Amino acid sequence: MWNKENRFTGWTDVTLSEQGIEEAKKAGRDLKEAGFKFDLAYTSYLKRAIKTCWLALEEMDLMYIPIRNTWKLNEKHYGSLTGLNKSETAAKYGDEQVKLWRRGFDIAPPELSKEDALHPANDSKYAAINKNELPGTESLRDTVDRIVPVWNEIKNEFESKNEILVVAHGNSLRGMLMYIKRLSEAEILEINIPTGIPYVFEFDDQMHLIKDYYLADEETLQQLMNEVANQGKK
Amino acid sequence: MWNKENRFTGWTDVTLSEQGIEEAKKAGRDLKEAGFKFDLAYTSYLKRAIKTCWLALEEMDLMYIPIRNTWKLNEKHYGSLTGLNKSETAAKYGDEQVKLWRRGFDIAPPELSKEDALHPANDSKYAAINKNELPGTESLRDTVDRIVPVWNEIKNEFESKNEILVVAHGNSLRGMLMYIKRLSEAEILEINIPTGIPYVFEFDDQMHLIKDYYLADEETLQQLMNEVANQGKK
Repeated sequence: MWNKENRFTGWTDVTLSEQGIEEAKKAGRDLKEAGFKFDLAYTSYLKRAIKTCWLALEEMDLMYIPIRNTWKLNEKHYGSLTGLNKSETAAKYGDEQVKLWRRGFDIAPPELSKEDALHPANDSKYAAINKNELPGTESLRDTVDRIVPVWNEIKNEFESKNEILVVAHGNSLRGMLMYIKRLSEAEILEINIPTGIPYVFEFDDQMHLIKDYYLADEETLQQLMNEVANQGKK
Repeated sequence: MWNKENRFTGWTDVTLSEQGIEEAKKAGRDLKEAGFKFDLAYTSYLKRAIKTCWLALEEMDLMYIPIRNTWKLNEKHYGSLTGLNKSETAAKYGDEQVKLWRRGFDIAPPELSKEDALHPANDSKYAAINKNELPGTESLRDTVDRIVPVWNEIKNEFESKNEILVVAHGNSLRGMLMYIKRLSEAEILEINIPTGIPYVFEFDDQMHLIKDYYLADEETLQQLMNEVANQGKK
């Protein structure tokens, strides 16, 4: 919903739009058609990811597989930019500053105070989580750093599982991509992950990456990547 | 869907009807309104239960809580009656025989052979489960027996959780009810659990039952219980 409104969403728990619902179902159908049969799924604490996961698994007839939710797969936390319209922010601070905030590796937006109602420490959803772990803002580095333990857990799961589905968000998925493909900070900044397109990583028995590819034709892919890249422009 | 068609469903993985979807959403709204806030959910391997669970949690804004799936919460396995129309079976074998099959505590319908395509040992959904554990038919006693470990696990979970949601099926829920309320075999046979109505059990710190009640008015409840009781009649 907020992508459509061009707002910084981050940890705001907005629902899927109709387009998001259709993209999720299509992703499930495409994965099923390509022969995937997951035995485990990971997703975040945010309902747009959880619902995408549920809809895709329903299309695949895999509703019974275990789903693990972790806040560490949540989208990057945008601090005090959360909820602002991206174009307005760009007009006010300039395209460059917004690009740094959205895409700079080490630069976090101004932090929400622990007293702010928007801070996750005040959200009952995260009540069971150590308040000191919960961020009031994040740079891309912060987001990428919290993906490490999730990725390590997933790697270990492959000892008993064959196919694992991860449903998450643009920046948390960039973090995972960075580890899997051993990308540099400069390289990851240039990568825009499109919404709703399955991205497949195949590993050998030693968990070395054999190949990775999107389940989409080149034209669709380019169009969706451009949409993501242009979200921060005024 | 098959309740509507008055067929023995058991382990057949039929989808929720439109009425089932509406009942699930209403259950979620009623639970939310009554102030429930689950921190853990259990459901079966069958999509009509899983989807009910998902829809209720979505209404309650609790999509992020952990959901554990276990085949031990599946409906009673109806053996070779699976898929037959209940009225036809009643006309052929008589109301009494059908009542015994459906409701007799120790009487299981004729068993499916391990080679039968309908046997769960041949269903990829149960591939990770020991084939010798998977039933080809069940008496109510068999169903109730497999609920014991689930109920013991749930009891232990209350050491760290406050509210646990269980979404399952008429006969697996009867099994749970039998243990919680220490009912006799004769007593449980007289109990019909209506679809889609939340049933609340409150325990003290020592897990003694304090009270139990349905979240519905008496009239709605009686009507739904009669519908379940009459399903096996011709």
